[in-house]
Amino acid sequence: MTLRISIIGFGAVGQGVADALMRTAYPIKVVAIADSRGAVMDATGVDLASALQRKRETGTVALPDTDEGAVADTEGMTALDAIVGMDHEIMVEATPTDISTGGIGLSYIRKAFESGRHVVTSNKGPLVVAYSELCGLARKNDLYFRFEATVGGAMPAINLSNETLAGNRIISIEGVLNGTCNYILTRMDDEGVSYEHALGEAQELGIAEADPSADVDGIDTAAKIVILANSVFGMDVGYDDVDVTGITKITPESFKLAKEEGHTIKLIGEIRDGVLKVAPKMVPRNHPLSIGGTFNLASIQTELAGRITIGGIGAGSVETASAILSDILWIEGHQGLSPDRL
Amino acid sequence: MTLRISIIGFGAVGQGVADALMRTAYPIKVVAIADSRGAVMDATGVDLASALQRKRETGTVALPDTDEGAVADTEGMTALDAIVGMDHEIMVEATPTDISTGGIGLSYIRKAFESGRHVVTSNKGPLVVAYSELCGLARKNDLYFRFEATVGGAMPAINLSNETLAGNRIISIEGVLNGTCNYILTRMDDEGVSYEHALGEAQELGIAEADPSADVDGIDTAAKIVILANSVFGMDVGYDDVDVTGITKITPESFKLAKEEGHTIKLIGEIRDGVLKVAPKMVPRNHPLSIGGTFNLASIQTELAGRITIGGIGAGSVETASAILSDILWIEGHQGLSPDRL
Repeated sequence: MTLRISIIGFGAVGQGVADALMRTAYPIKVVAIADSRGAVMDATGVDLASALQRKRETGTVALPDTDEGAVADTEGMTALDAIVGMDHEIMVEATPTDISTGGIGLSYIRKAFESGRHVVTSNKGPLVVAYSELCGLARKNDLYFRFEATVGGAMPAINLSNETLAGNRIISIEGVLNGTCNYILTRMDDEGVSYEHALGEAQELGIAEADPSADVDGIDTAAKIVILANSVFGMDVGYDDVDVTGITKITPESFKLAKEEGHTIKLIGEIRDGVLKVAPKMVPRNHPLSIGGTFNLASIQTELAGRITIGGIGAGSVETASAILSDILWIEGHQGLSPDRL
Repeated sequence: MTLRISIIGFGAVGQGVADALMRTAYPIKVVAIADSRGAVMDATGVDLASALQRKRETGTVALPDTDEGAVADTEGMTALDAIVGMDHEIMVEATPTDISTGGIGLSYIRKAFESGRHVVTSNKGPLVVAYSELCGLARKNDLYFRFEATVGGAMPAINLSNETLAGNRIISIEGVLNGTCNYILTRMDDEGVSYEHALGEAQELGIAEADPSADVDGIDTAAKIVILANSVFGMDVGYDDVDVTGITKITPESFKLAKEEGHTIKLIGEIRDGVLKVAPKMVPRNHPLSIGGTFNLASIQTELAGRITIGGIGAGSVETASAILSDILWIEGHQGLSPDRL
């Protein structure tokens, strides 16, 4: 059977999903794509190459409004029309992140569960704001809710902890979970430059945004820690439960002192003994967390297996899409089982 | 429903499984344990604490032969009696490794599939010698065959590649897959000592065996590469298909030269473009494969996600048992699905 999905949100990640699907041979059909300006729907399968081209050229995936002869008139069609109105098994939600309110993605996920769609998301907002509500909705409707892409892009920390390491109680997790911060800190360490200099460099390369605060203030890392705490440790916490310090006050002198002791400085998010924390930390140079560049790495302390590390590229549209694709295929492989059973 | 298992082979790994089961609360009942001298069976569940104690004190798990009044007379009872005669769902096979013939474990696995038992093994021998035959037997009998513990102890490289990263074509794998070699090489790098000196140290610590050849000649790493090639890349290869060089000829001078270029030396097993190779390699110091001590790490190059790394403790009875436990729980969670479906 061909699995039918919708892609709601067609920025870098949504486009990455379309791109990844074009590169693979899985029997997955995209029956709807929506962005903030409209939607395209086709029960026989949206042409992904045209959709990507249209988005690039016109800024929206929606078909232009024509007077006559149009294959599909999508004027006024919205993400909600797609979620509710098109028959499909899985909604892929990749709208912009808002970790204060959950953003528009939160209402889309609610609507998807109410409409009988499994949900795969890369959006941290809804998970930080309403994790337990959304899990409850999924359970109530006998549907799956998967969100590997929310933590660390391609690095599969959540599914590794919950599935691959099944049977192992997870004692603590600490991780380098933000590629932008890690790039800046790696440059400060390698070149002895100031925070401002390294940030400017990262901005020029497109690694940091014009307003970098979500990354450098530790907000993004804290959101990921909230998601890991709720999904791996079974906690019920929100953003305010994390003690957060960013990297903006780290000086070249701090790196010099760290170096003298064979250490470097990393922004570490951690969950340990029920305490959630994000802060710069000294890390020995031969420690697994001492990775360079935009790589992400989580060090997972388990009861039986000891320490397990998992690393991967922390951002990038196709890399993040790969995590979404894994979640889609997991649902495909588990449709014969009731969610309750797992 | 309580899952019933047998533990065939009761050395360090088999005892580790019993130990891990005593520490966890999963509904798993051990109905038989066998070692080379006998077996103990109990449909209501073998007492694991007594079994472990008996093994330590008498050298076998089998109950002593008594003339009268014995709870169970296990004289002459064998692993095969347990596999065939006791009703159970999963055989855990942990007999000694023989990568030339497959060893006694190979016949036990065949017998288990013929008797309708799923199989979880930590034994490289049967997989190196008869991987495709055993997979065929499992399929024919509609049973699962899991073997995460064969590669890298607690490091879940196989299930990560095949399940967590579903949807990602794996392009290549390179890994530090033998903790003994990595310990020796780490000491040579850190202290500038000779191979012989570091080996002696490892033997004193119990990290290397009296006859260290399976480790230091690269044989163990090559066996793991064969298993990864067959199970992750879908190849059909054996030990003779690997080009193997060990670590016995590495000199302190080689480390000196490597160091001057910011590198270290690691024994790397790799699968790339269909070629299987084990050899010492120069690795940059900040590379993820540049891990120290007895840790194992695999660097997995994927089509969509780029490079993913997975690390874990490469040996140890409870650590290896944790991989077996994950496989047992995976089967438990998938019993509702036919193996063909996955």
